[in-house]
Amino acid sequence: MTVRVGVIGAGMIGQDHIRRLTEVITGAEVVAVTDIDADRAAEVAARVGARAVATGADLIGQPDVDAVLVTSWGPTHAEHVLAAIAAGKPVFCEKPLATEAADCLRIVEAEQAAGRRLVQVGFMRRYDSGYRELKSILDAGGIGAPLMVHCAHRNPSVPESYHSAMAAQDTAVHEIDVLRWLLDDEIVAVQVLAPRRTRHAHAELQDPQIMLFETASGIRIDLEVFVNCQWGYDIQCETVGETGLARLPEPARATVRSAGTTRTAVPQDWRERFVTAFDVEFQEWIDAVAAGEPTGPSAWDGYAATVITDATVEALRSGRTVGVDMKDRPAFYAGGAR
Amino acid sequence: MTVRVGVIGAGMIGQDHIRRLTEVITGAEVVAVTDIDADRAAEVAARVGARAVATGADLIGQPDVDAVLVTSWGPTHAEHVLAAIAAGKPVFCEKPLATEAADCLRIVEAEQAAGRRLVQVGFMRRYDSGYRELKSILDAGGIGAPLMVHCAHRNPSVPESYHSAMAAQDTAVHEIDVLRWLLDDEIVAVQVLAPRRTRHAHAELQDPQIMLFETASGIRIDLEVFVNCQWGYDIQCETVGETGLARLPEPARATVRSAGTTRTAVPQDWRERFVTAFDVEFQEWIDAVAAGEPTGPSAWDGYAATVITDATVEALRSGRTVGVDMKDRPAFYAGGAR
Amino acid sequence: MTVRVGVIGAGMIGQDHIRRLTEVITGAEVVAVTDIDADRAAEVAARVGARAVATGADLIGQPDVDAVLVTSWGPTHAEHVLAAIAAGKPVFCEKPLATEAADCLRIVEAEQAAGRRLVQVGFMRRYDSGYRELKSILDAGGIGAPLMVHCAHRNPSVPESYHSAMAAQDTAVHEIDVLRWLLDDEIVAVQVLAPRRTRHAHAELQDPQIMLFETASGIRIDLEVFVNCQWGYDIQCETVGETGLARLPEPARATVRSAGTTRTAVPQDWRERFVTAFDVEFQEWIDAVAAGEPTGPSAWDGYAATVITDATVEALRSGRTVGVDMKDRPAFYAGGAR
Amino acid sequence: MTVRVGVIGAGMIGQDHIRRLTEVITGAEVVAVTDIDADRAAEVAARVGARAVATGADLIGQPDVDAVLVTSWGPTHAEHVLAAIAAGKPVFCEKPLATEAADCLRIVEAEQAAGRRLVQVGFMRRYDSGYRELKSILDAGGIGAPLMVHCAHRNPSVPESYHSAMAAQDTAVHEIDVLRWLLDDEIVAVQVLAPRRTRHAHAELQDPQIMLFETASGIRIDLEVFVNCQWGYDIQCETVGETGLARLPEPARATVRSAGTTRTAVPQDWRERFVTAFDVEFQEWIDAVAAGEPTGPSAWDGYAATVITDATVEALRSGRTVGVDMKDRPAFYAGGAR
Repeated sequence: MTVRVGVIGAGMIGQDHIRRLTEVITGAEVVAVTDIDADRAAEVAARVGARAVATGADLIGQPDVDAVLVTSWGPTHAEHVLAAIAAGKPVFCEKPLATEAADCLRIVEAEQAAGRRLVQVGFMRRYDSGYRELKSILDAGGIGAPLMVHCAHRNPSVPESYHSAMAAQDTAVHEIDVLRWLLDDEIVAVQVLAPRRTRHAHAELQDPQIMLFETASGIRIDLEVFVNCQWGYDIQCETVGETGLARLPEPARATVRSAGTTRTAVPQDWRERFVTAFDVEFQEWIDAVAAGEPTGPSAWDGYAATVITDATVEALRSGRTVGVDMKDRPAFYAGGAR
Repeated sequence: MTVRVGVIGAGMIGQDHIRRLTEVITGAEVVAVTDIDADRAAEVAARVGARAVATGADLIGQPDVDAVLVTSWGPTHAEHVLAAIAAGKPVFCEKPLATEAADCLRIVEAEQAAGRRLVQVGFMRRYDSGYRELKSILDAGGIGAPLMVHCAHRNPSVPESYHSAMAAQDTAVHEIDVLRWLLDDEIVAVQVLAPRRTRHAHAELQDPQIMLFETASGIRIDLEVFVNCQWGYDIQCETVGETGLARLPEPARATVRSAGTTRTAVPQDWRERFVTAFDVEFQEWIDAVAAGEPTGPSAWDGYAATVITDATVEALRSGRTVGVDMKDRPAFYAGGAR
Repeated sequence: MTVRVGVIGAGMIGQDHIRRLTEVITGAEVVAVTDIDADRAAEVAARVGARAVATGADLIGQPDVDAVLVTSWGPTHAEHVLAAIAAGKPVFCEKPLATEAADCLRIVEAEQAAGRRLVQVGFMRRYDSGYRELKSILDAGGIGAPLMVHCAHRNPSVPESYHSAMAAQDTAVHEIDVLRWLLDDEIVAVQVLAPRRTRHAHAELQDPQIMLFETASGIRIDLEVFVNCQWGYDIQCETVGETGLARLPEPARATVRSAGTTRTAVPQDWRERFVTAFDVEFQEWIDAVAAGEPTGPSAWDGYAATVITDATVEALRSGRTVGVDMKDRPAFYAGGAR
Repeated sequence: MTVRVGVIGAGMIGQDHIRRLTEVITGAEVVAVTDIDADRAAEVAARVGARAVATGADLIGQPDVDAVLVTSWGPTHAEHVLAAIAAGKPVFCEKPLATEAADCLRIVEAEQAAGRRLVQVGFMRRYDSGYRELKSILDAGGIGAPLMVHCAHRNPSVPESYHSAMAAQDTAVHEIDVLRWLLDDEIVAVQVLAPRRTRHAHAELQDPQIMLFETASGIRIDLEVFVNCQWGYDIQCETVGETGLARLPEPARATVRSAGTTRTAVPQDWRERFVTAFDVEFQEWIDAVAAGEPTGPSAWDGYAATVITDATVEALRSGRTVGVDMKDRPAFYAGGAR
């Protein structure tokens, strides 16, 4: 069975996912595309033999759209996801699920009312083979009970439009999700340290930041977010447990020895670093949709990420430790499966 | 356009490729399957909604078979490949192209007579991201002119049926192909050293072996083939040039530190080690067929591998350096493209 | 010229240094030994052809004692160091210089009054080739201006007598000194996080601890202290600057590949890890004393370490960020040389 | 007890060892120096408070010379070593023991006639902590019975005076000795492959060379000797056994990540790479001499190295496999101790 996908948002990421659904993975077909820019929608749709439609609502309503992919501007996510739920159609929403925690909650409630999982949020780290190996080591007791996690998320540089809150909202949000999943634990408090700023950031930006998270069971996580590090896209994760530590693999790269040094290349952007994770994420989503319902990061995970992100932004602003004010997890979302 | 594939040979490798064509890559469909065991053909075909046909000749003749995949027993390869060429259909043949050099030559001549490339041979190392990175480093002059290559091909163990000549025919053949491609040079002579045998091999088997190849330009290659090494499936390749060396990456694996050691896991078989290379190999083959003609390892490469393999077996048997008796390369196969 | 050394304290560390002065380094001779246990002093002295004397004061007064080594119980350090200064003799004092900051200040003042450097404190990390390479990289601008440092100090286990304050006083004190030297910056504030405790520590002990230091220039340091980590003696230091990062080398160990893993051994104690650093420390001290005056960690460094350690203990106790209440550095101790 | 050493040969290496005996190790004193250049002898002797003497014979005859160090020109070694044996004095001879195998045999016979070990040859690799770790792994059965060894010995460049035979005599001789010791096995045959030459060598020099050694038990060793590799002084040794492999550690160096690469420095010369091994070698020699007799590489090891080196030169010249024509090992030299 081929899953026929309608895509809301034909910007850079939308186009990349359309290419992925069309050329890379199997079992999917893009049948409809919409975008705030109708010309762009038409052009992108034409490339893959799909049709352009006027609005997200139109697209969701098309009878041959089996599943919806939302890659539009963040503030519009909630509206489209809620419409898809109302139509009873599976929907994959790029992060964030919604920019406001209240909207995330509305989605969580709508999905529960619908009685089955329809929503998956685009946290692709869970599909990276390195994080999966780490999780299998932890789950097998390979390091004993986890006590601490040391992480870094580094980008070579960011545009002028990147502001200090985005370090949490756009950057750390990936670690926030993947660590909740890796540790099977909830983040309950956060503090942000502001080191001396790099001269390679614009004047308004606090870069780097050190985020300190505490989980319900008392695990302490430190996360360096450094988005103008100059040297590359560099993701580190070291989990320390009662009897051992396990570290995320470095990307496999050839070793070159010449002119007095031994060296390997560092990836320069997230596409290069996580391209396979994206492919796996979409293949598994399509397979799960074809089989019944999505099994990846849930609406609840999307809600949790937004609440924790909000607390992180407040922690940076206030300089204080901020508790995460999260609702109790509904039974509907219990277990890893939801 | 979907490429409709007919598969000759539904054994373990055939089934794996059928899964790959069906579930992993995009743009392909398996429409017909044949096997010497008709029941197995029927069963495997049914799984993917294809039909079973009686013989390879029948399969090649089906109007809806756009391209042929040959994964049957080695000695039958030549017959099927020649039939596909006669039918003007692209054919992907698992290695070896043919067990006899004379048959490889017949294929090379038939393809030239057909006037366009139809044949691709299943040397998947060229599709591994590590070897590709190595080639890009060499091609960019990153180590200067290559002078030596140090390689190892290790398997944890082999069955009783594996005999000494298979170290060249089944195992080293992968290095033989990938080194010809990597260095863009031809192997002209070979010598085989017989170290003290491991007690973990059966009595008739010379294991390990050290194969010493010389290329037309004078590059020296040493290749350790050790198929009962016990510890894992371990592929090494270090190229040494006038100004530097470049080494194939180790697979990316998590680092674990506990109980007094720091360690990473070693892959245990070739599927685990090269799964992505196989996926890329088939995606690129399907894409190339859809676009016109295959661009991967050619019939000429298949011929060369068989001739060099034969010389290697003779070198082991005789204990002497054996020259490789290869025809001149036809203009048809000039350049990397053919 | 041979430097004739008198040793105060013939316990385990004292004996190890006596062996070092006698058997490993050149240019030194141990002529006198004292210990609170007179029998032990006699026995240890006899082994190296030295004489035992009754008290530290006696030892310092011996005409043939050119330099004094203090390795007695911490609370007695100040008294011996002050006596050596009064006698105008160079004195090497194992850490801490004094257990009370007030006593450290008295030493600092006495040394200034003496008008020349006599005191060196036993912070041996500065003599480790790895830290020295790190410092040379930083000093050469290899990572730009430092912004953050991520450290870990792990021991396999500690005895029951080890209490929570010792994580700062005995363990982190090495990082406190070496980071001040590495960064050429002063620590001004500290906070301590208390992760969930390992079950491998005794009930009273907060283990692990995460110490967060801030320097005068705004560099942020995080230091994991984990003294019951089970797996080994594991020292990590990663410095992150505006344009790069530099990481302390792992000890050079053979790589072994067998039984499905690739691995290296982790050192099991500080002697194994830093044996060469101790040798270099003492050779350089003896050479410097022979040449005029010591050039290693000064009395001021000893004072600073004690003040920062005190603040760290208070930060753990209070759960709050604690400012480091340090005097202004006298001109006498300006520059790396003092 | 201080061992009083007389040094024959005050060139670069002699001066370095004099510095080592004087400033680095303990228990030794240089009392006399001789050199073919009397002025140089006088100057070097004066530096360390020793006296210059006219000839090697004079030096060996001095009553206060307890032990002799020979670092003169290779062809003069035999004469001095034989004189030292005649005088009953321990003698440390830099490699080669003698340039002619016949002279080595005369030394071996003289030493046996003297009835106790007096001679140690300067093969310092056995004192490197990496090779020692490798040996302890092999001896403990960590890789099962050894079957193959893959080695490389690379120098950044050599002067014009370096000729093809020196690849064996001056360069590979270190591996020849250390592999005999590591494997506790004898080399019985050798073949040399001549790859395409690097353009960075002078016209007469065959560089690189691949030397293939076979041991009595059937172990196969391949050794790349590449003395104009440009990139550094790079020593590799990988031992492959029936159940595992063990590899010599890389020197411990800081990791730097900047400008798109992760890298470590490669040593640039043998002093940098093996400085500690030289120090340990001399400390152990002095300690052994003080305790009775030397325990390091023996006259027999010196003889074996010269015979194997001669066979290697002949193998390069002839292009054929050359058997090593070695006498039977006398019982006097049985066991690792002699």
